[in-house]
Amino acid sequence: MTNEEIFAKTTINSWKLAVGRLDHMFSSLSDEELQAEVAPGRSRVLYLLGHLTAVHDRMLPLLGFGERLHPELDEAFISKPDGEPADRASAGDLRRAWSEVNERLMAAFVALPPAEWLQRHEAISAEDFAREPLRNRLAVLQNRTAHAENHAGQITLALQRRS
Amino acid sequence: MTNEEIFAKTTINSWKLAVGRLDHMFSSLSDEELQAEVAPGRSRVLYLLGHLTAVHDRMLPLLGFGERLHPELDEAFISKPDGEPADRASAGDLRRAWSEVNERLMAAFVALPPAEWLQRHEAISAEDFAREPLRNRLAVLQNRTAHAENHAGQITLALQRRS
Repeated sequence: MTNEEIFAKTTINSWKLAVGRLDHMFSSLSDEELQAEVAPGRSRVLYLLGHLTAVHDRMLPLLGFGERLHPELDEAFISKPDGEPADRASAGDLRRAWSEVNERLMAAFVALPPAEWLQRHEAISAEDFAREPLRNRLAVLQNRTAHAENHAGQITLALQRRS
Repeated sequence: MTNEEIFAKTTINSWKLAVGRLDHMFSSLSDEELQAEVAPGRSRVLYLLGHLTAVHDRMLPLLGFGERLHPELDEAFISKPDGEPADRASAGDLRRAWSEVNERLMAAFVALPPAEWLQRHEAISAEDFAREPLRNRLAVLQNRTAHAENHAGQITLALQRRS
């Protein structure tokens, strides 16, 4: 493997670990248990499942990997906090969307030539990117890994309360 | 910048963002507010400050950057969960140790030649590393960034409850 390949694969592996931890947590909760709040008055785990799915789905166009699979999730899970009245997807629908989106992303990640992680993403202009080369696709992947872990820490609290 | 430099700098930047978010949260809480639990019956923010400081301090020898600065934190903040009787450092001591450890790490990170992030860390043997080249220093940095974000998500809950 070249150094660039190792840099890319190590970073993809960190993403995979974060998504794997969340997979494990979501799978260990029943549809009913997904209704638990992570702390009193805070988001339900179900909301975070929808939120994470929507945020990951947005990575597809952001990283240049094509159209979104579930843009319909944004209104309930990005624009609004938990608790606002909204048409919500069912737990089963969200579990399926979560897996589908992450599988699509992983297929795109492993197919991307390593050096292309350093290209700009779709939310930065060519001019800005010329000045700020660290605002690349790799940064998006690392930022979203951090976001996933941030919510994983919260979901852990709901799991611990249950045991 | 070479591609290797951009890979390394982008990853260091993600670490810096995670530590910066935690810095901001710890600074916005008084010593008394650090006593708040992140959720009922769970760790206090003060414990997580000590825990994160100890985990970061352990990165110094793990990454080959020299001796630890605060090995005395392990007993109270790694070996034991929160709530067990133990001699605890004061909030002021922990705040200082947190800054000191992260400054030492950042100085070492920026001084490391990019390709050396792909070398093995001290917790894996040369034989194992020959088979598993993704278990490198970069993976440690990304894993600890994930760990920091995981607890940052929990501390956010204590901050939100306060506002």
